[in-house]
This record gives sequence, C-alpha cells and structure tokens, in this order.
Amino acid sequence: MEKVIQHIENNFNNYLEELKEYISIPSISTLDENKKDMITCANYVADKLKSAGMKKTKVIKTDGHPLVYGEWMGAPGKPTVLIYGHYDVQPVDPLDEWKTPPFELTVKAGKMYARGANDNKGQNFVHIKSVESYFKTDGTLPCNVKFLIEGEEEIGSSNLGKFLKTNQKLLKCDAVMISDTSMFAPNTPTVSYGLRGLCYMEIEMIGPKQDLHSGSFGGAVANPINELAKLISKLHDKNGKITIPNFYKDVQKMTKKEKENLKSLKFSEAKFAKELNVKELQGEKGFGTLERLWIRPTLDCNGIVGGFTGKGAKTVLPSKASAKISMRLVPNQDPKTVAKEFTKYVKSLAPKSVKINVKELHGGLPFVAPLEEKAVVAAANAASKAFKKKTVFTREGGSIPIVVEFNKQLNAPVILMGLGLDTDNIHSPNEHFNVSSFKSGIKASAYFLDEMSKI
Amino acid sequence: MEKVIQHIENNFNNYLEELKEYISIPSISTLDENKKDMITCANYVADKLKSAGMKKTKVIKTDGHPLVYGEWMGAPGKPTVLIYGHYDVQPVDPLDEWKTPPFELTVKAGKMYARGANDNKGQNFVHIKSVESYFKTDGTLPCNVKFLIEGEEEIGSSNLGKFLKTNQKLLKCDAVMISDTSMFAPNTPTVSYGLRGLCYMEIEMIGPKQDLHSGSFGGAVANPINELAKLISKLHDKNGKITIPNFYKDVQKMTKKEKENLKSLKFSEAKFAKELNVKELQGEKGFGTLERLWIRPTLDCNGIVGGFTGKGAKTVLPSKASAKISMRLVPNQDPKTVAKEFTKYVKSLAPKSVKINVKELHGGLPFVAPLEEKAVVAAANAASKAFKKKTVFTREGGSIPIVVEFNKQLNAPVILMGLGLDTDNIHSPNEHFNVSSFKSGIKASAYFLDEMSKI
Repeated sequence: MEKVIQHIENNFNNYLEELKEYISIPSISTLDENKKDMITCANYVADKLKSAGMKKTKVIKTDGHPLVYGEWMGAPGKPTVLIYGHYDVQPVDPLDEWKTPPFELTVKAGKMYARGANDNKGQNFVHIKSVESYFKTDGTLPCNVKFLIEGEEEIGSSNLGKFLKTNQKLLKCDAVMISDTSMFAPNTPTVSYGLRGLCYMEIEMIGPKQDLHSGSFGGAVANPINELAKLISKLHDKNGKITIPNFYKDVQKMTKKEKENLKSLKFSEAKFAKELNVKELQGEKGFGTLERLWIRPTLDCNGIVGGFTGKGAKTVLPSKASAKISMRLVPNQDPKTVAKEFTKYVKSLAPKSVKINVKELHGGLPFVAPLEEKAVVAAANAASKAFKKKTVFTREGGSIPIVVEFNKQLNAPVILMGLGLDTDNIHSPNEHFNVSSFKSGIKASAYFLDEMSKI
Repeated sequence: MEKVIQHIENNFNNYLEELKEYISIPSISTLDENKKDMITCANYVADKLKSAGMKKTKVIKTDGHPLVYGEWMGAPGKPTVLIYGHYDVQPVDPLDEWKTPPFELTVKAGKMYARGANDNKGQNFVHIKSVESYFKTDGTLPCNVKFLIEGEEEIGSSNLGKFLKTNQKLLKCDAVMISDTSMFAPNTPTVSYGLRGLCYMEIEMIGPKQDLHSGSFGGAVANPINELAKLISKLHDKNGKITIPNFYKDVQKMTKKEKENLKSLKFSEAKFAKELNVKELQGEKGFGTLERLWIRPTLDCNGIVGGFTGKGAKTVLPSKASAKISMRLVPNQDPKTVAKEFTKYVKSLAPKSVKINVKELHGGLPFVAPLEEKAVVAAANAASKAFKKKTVFTREGGSIPIVVEFNKQLNAPVILMGLGLDTDNIHSPNEHFNVSSFKSGIKASAYFLDEMSKI
C-alpha cells in the first residue's frame, strides 16, 4: 500500500498532464457538432484504461454516444468493485464569462480550471490513475475491478439505463463506486449514502372559456389564478407538513447511527442562510435543516404562470393558470404511488367552479444504503486515510436516477465518494476542481480497493 | 316632438349614407400612419356639427389628436347637456378575419358592419342627427347643448383629461350624456348609472438570491411561489370576502330603489355560466351575480409568474415570483387608501423567510349617480319612449376613467345611455351595430333633450 501511495505522489505531475489531454477533447454530449469528439473521447478513455492495466477494454456502441468498459478479474474469491463515471461534459456558454479557455486545463492557486475538470473527467480519472498505480507497483489489484464510463450523463443516461437492464451479468459486482458529487466541506472526506427521489407533477386550472375583462366579469366567476393559489396553499399545513393523504406513510425514520452522524456534522444554519441571502430558513417544523434536506420529503412549486405577465397593468381575468409542483421523496416512498395520491388529492381540493387537469411529468426512486454496509464503511475508511481526516457521511437532497438504477439492476450498494465542492461552478463558466482533492482522491480510490479486498 | 320623430323616420336612409362617409375615414388613433386621417376625421365631425346647426364649432389642437367642440346656447334658463363621444377607432388587424372591408359600412340582416359602426362613430352620430332633426323641424333645441368629441379615447384620453381640468367654464353643464356602452339585452333601453373604480397592484416575492436546485435546497428555504400562493389565498376568506383591513368600510350600500331595480332585471345565472363554460359561478357569498359585478368590490389576480414555465420538468427552486392583483372598487372606496391598506396588509402576511415588494401600478375612482337624479330619470324616460319599452338601469363592472373625470371636473351627473350590445365585436373583426338601435338611438337622444328641458 505504501508503495502505491508513494507512486501516486511521485507521478502526480504526469497525471495532471494526462488530465490536460483528457480535458482538451470537447466532449459536449448535447451538441451535434461535437459528435466526433464524443467518439474521440470514448477511445481516449478506453486507451487510458488499457494502459492503466485493465483488460477487455472496449468502446460499446449505443443508440447515442458510446460507453467505455474495462475489467480486471484477476483476484478470484475477492469482491468486485464497479467504478462508474462519465466522459461527457456540459456546454460552455456563455463563453465570454470564462477567465481561461474552457478546454485548456489551467492551474491557478491550487485549482484546476476547465470544463469537466470536476464534472466528471477529473473525478473519474482519479480511479483510472489509482488502478494504474497498483499495476505499476504491485503488478496486480487487491480486488476485482470493472469500469463503466458513459457519454450521456449530462443528457439523461438513457442508453446506459437500457444497458444496465440487459448486462447484469457482465456488470455483476459487490459495490458501485461513483465520484460525481460534492464533499460536505472543503478538504472533508465525504461518503454519501442516500439520494432523494422525485415525483414531478403539473396542474392546470381552467376557469371561463376565454380570458375575460376583469371589470366586466370580476366577482362573478372563479379566477383560476386565485383558485390555483388557494390549492397550492393547502398542500402544506401551518407546520410545513405536506397534507397529501398517506404521504408520510412509507417514510423511513433515521437509524440511531444516522442520527449520531447528523449530530456530529458541523453545519451552520446562520452561514447557510447568509449565503442564500435569506433572513430566515424555513421548512417542516421539528426537523433541522440537514434533516429537511436529506431525510425528509418536500414539496416545491417549480414554476407557475397565468394571465398577464408583461410589464404594467392589464385587467384580465384569465381563462387558466398552471403550476409545476415537484416532491422530493425519501425511502421508501414510491413516486407512482405519490403521483396517484397527489392527483386524487388536488382534484378533491378544486371547487366545482373550475376544471382541473393533473399530469405526471417525471418520477424517480429514492435510494439509501445502510450506514453499516461494508462497502460504505470501506469507502469511509479509505477516504479518512487519504485525506488524513475523519470521513463524514451525508445524504444528497437531489436525485440521480442512474444511481438508483445501478442499485436496482445490480442489487449492489452504491457509494458516492464525491471529491468536488458545491462552489466549484460545475455546469457554469469557470468550472474548477482542487488540485489537492484530485491527488487525495487518487489515494482514496487506492485505499478503497485495498479496504474492499478485506471485507 | 312628433315632427322631430317623423323627420328622423323620413330621413333615416340619409343618416345611414352619412354614417358611411364618417366610417370611411380610417381614424385609428394609435397608428402613426393614420395621423392625417385623424385630422380629416376631426374636420368631418366639426362640419357635421355645423351643418346640424351647432354654433362655435371648432377643431381644438392638443398634444395628440384634436378635440372637436360645438355648442348651441340659445335656450337661456334651460339646462345644458354636454354630449361626449369619440371619433377615433381601434386598429383593424387581423384584417383577414373581416368578412367585409372594415372601413366600408355594410348593412346585412339588420346589422351595420364596420370598424367604428358601434364604437363610437355610430353611437355619437346618433346625437348629431338628433340635434339636426330639431333644427330642421323646430328650428331650435329644447335645451342648451354642447358637444365634445375626442380622438384619443382608444389610447387613454390623456389630452382630454387635461382639457377638462382647464376648461370647466366652457364645458359647464347640468348633465353629461355618453353613448359608448352596451344595452343590458337586445332591444332593451338601458341607462347605466355607475362604474367601478380600480386599484391595480403588483407583488414581488423574493426568496434566495438566485434560482436553486430544488433537490439540493428543497426543504431548507422558503419557496417564493409557495409563499406567494399562500399570501394570495389569504386575501379572501372562506365566504369570498376580501380580508384587507377596512376594505369594506367605505362601501356604499344599495338604496331601496336600486334593490328594486336589480330585482326587476331578467338575468339568468345558468345561461351566464353556460356562456362562459363554467359549471358553477363563484363569488362573495350573500350577493347575487349582478350585485357582485356592479355593487360589490372584488379582488382578482390578473397575472402570476415564477420559476420554470416552459414545457416539461425543470427542478428549480426559484429566487422570486410575482403577481399582479387588482381590485375593482365601488363608491365610496378610494384607490389611494385601498392601495395603502393593501400594501400594509400583504407585507404583514409575508413570513420573515422572504422579502416582499409591493407596487401600485394604476388606480381609478368609482362613480355612481343616484337613481333619483333628474338627468338619469330624463334619460330613462327618453329611452323608454324611443324603444317603446321600459328602460332598465344597470351599473358597469368595469372602469372608464374619463367618465369619472367628467363627473369630478364638471360636477355634473354622467348618463351612460349605451346603444350597443356585448356581442357587437367592438375592438374585434366584424364590429357591428344594429340598424334599429341606431334609429331608436337618434330618437332617444331627441326625447332626452326634450325631457331635459322640463327638469
């Protein structure tokens, strides 16, 4: 192990140079004009896996951008780790807000600036270099490793989703390792063990058959905006609890261990509020902010529109108004069940004076791995060693559908060992990634394979 | 009187021919390209007033389109009637939806089709021809008459507003007669004696400093859309009453006579609901639909917008949301006072977790003339005689700021003797006006001058 870590230290500058090459390929998955770059990039990743020591490396065609696969199964009887990442990146516009060229990795004051430096080239390269370090020193890996690097994460992973369903045998593993999230705080090793799910609905409230003059008709008929507002206001009670019947029925409570972990996290509500420029935080009564973000389901309007929205005054009594309303779900809530209960409930809330249409737009399952799960513990131990600091456990408030799909299709725990920071501008101009996180990340990956060999 | 009425009958075809000329001038006040037509049309009106027998006719320059004035003050000791109308019209687009050329008066099945046929050339020509009929028969008028025909009604009457303020002596009168509204039902002589006022506000609800990811932040902070909805829902109680403190304090109750009149009107709520395609009407409890439209103040959202309003799903927790909210006011509510109370109240409703901005966009005073007012009675008697049917009294739910201005600046009752119908497509393609209403209107105007001479 020491040799491996020393090798990483000794060769780190080379890794930076290689990452520069990887970054220089503008693999923007959403733009047609970058289609060739996607193939170039997939081949680049396959070559890197091969030169790192992986076997059976291949570029797998899909209906969209290719997948890259590689494996090393030379440790029979030992656990198998599947490492997932993505080589595609977000577009770079607005280009004029970049301080350095987006596809030239530029190191400044301990930070590497480039599109993909963090999300996700920097973070998946960590694992490739950790594997390479083993082969260059020990000539072998402590456990079996599979890589699956896709090119469509930024556009919904739909082809990967299909691939998972039909390649369960190829991808069979004991744990899925993903570095594509953030650390809880700078230089704080972090393992995320849960994600919220999603149920995204749309309501349309319809009043009179056409827009009316609010003078000539105001007072006589229901106003769809006012009625929609009334309906939305009824979705929470005065304690911030969601009023949909049976909504909390399947909500998992925190384990004792989770509670202890949450207590141990240093989180300043005041600082958080200040960063968001709000006077006061707000949410479900009886729960702290982190609980409300990670452990509790929520309901938020994502959009609302109706009537006249231009400048100035127009005295219209609109014919309709609509709102997009989504709920973040936690284990064991089911998006389909929630969508049904939501629909029934909001229809019951609307008065006879209006018509209401309810549509389910999108759904995703929540996910959580037990804190006692061996792979979770292995990742935490590894990260602690690499960062020389105790690893903290977090859950994510957001939803990453493909993570849930890995968990579901491969029946294996998914470990989110994020190395980025929330302040790293992913998806925005001047994306960056700490050089020190990149280095500690490679070490953490190496320690993780070692820890996994012992479980 | 009989001679005058007979003269109208005998010469009606000529009046139609003249109206054709008046209509043929495309006096669209809002379009620069029609600026010359506006002057042509003003001169045409002045000529018509002169040939009708009016004195001191003149075209008065303003900062915008000219006003036309004429008077006949040959009945000392008798009351003076000021007749107001407008010679400007709305644009005609979409032109391809017109079945006949908009500036060619076309008579079909008892209706005259053209832009301005109803609003307002047809309706103001009625009064010019009534005066003419007197001069051609009696050689005199039963009372004093002043005409003021403007060219900016469709664009806000701002120059007329100024003119009223500085010409109170010139325009001094005992009643203002306006034919620019609708009858309660076809062939039903109608006098409107009240209008609602307006207080138009805008609320902006501000949450976090920027749009947030609804997964990463949902549950931690107040959502401005949800908070705005909550606030709007609090503006009415469960009986549909507006909850703003002191809101109803200055609201005038109906007189006994008004109540009787309202009772006598044939109004089908079922038919009204069916026309609007709503299952059920809705409004303040304890009041009928006509009361809610005419006698009671209301509050309506005219527009709302916030967050993601495109197609599909975007999981944003928006930074802000805003709504336009207007209140229709009735005597003796004051828009300034209402705006102040509204602002104070909504600010008190917003929780500390959001910021709120409230802006007053627009306001207008309500107006009502007592049903016992002599000029109101005179107009009703006149219309009954002309239409050979009992006149009904209505109020209007909308606001016509210039009417209130006449009332305020000249300290005279304003009579709205509308001759159009709600189904006449004013402001739309295929505007029309019943030939029979045009004829009965001329007679009603003649009877009105006669009735006024006796008050």
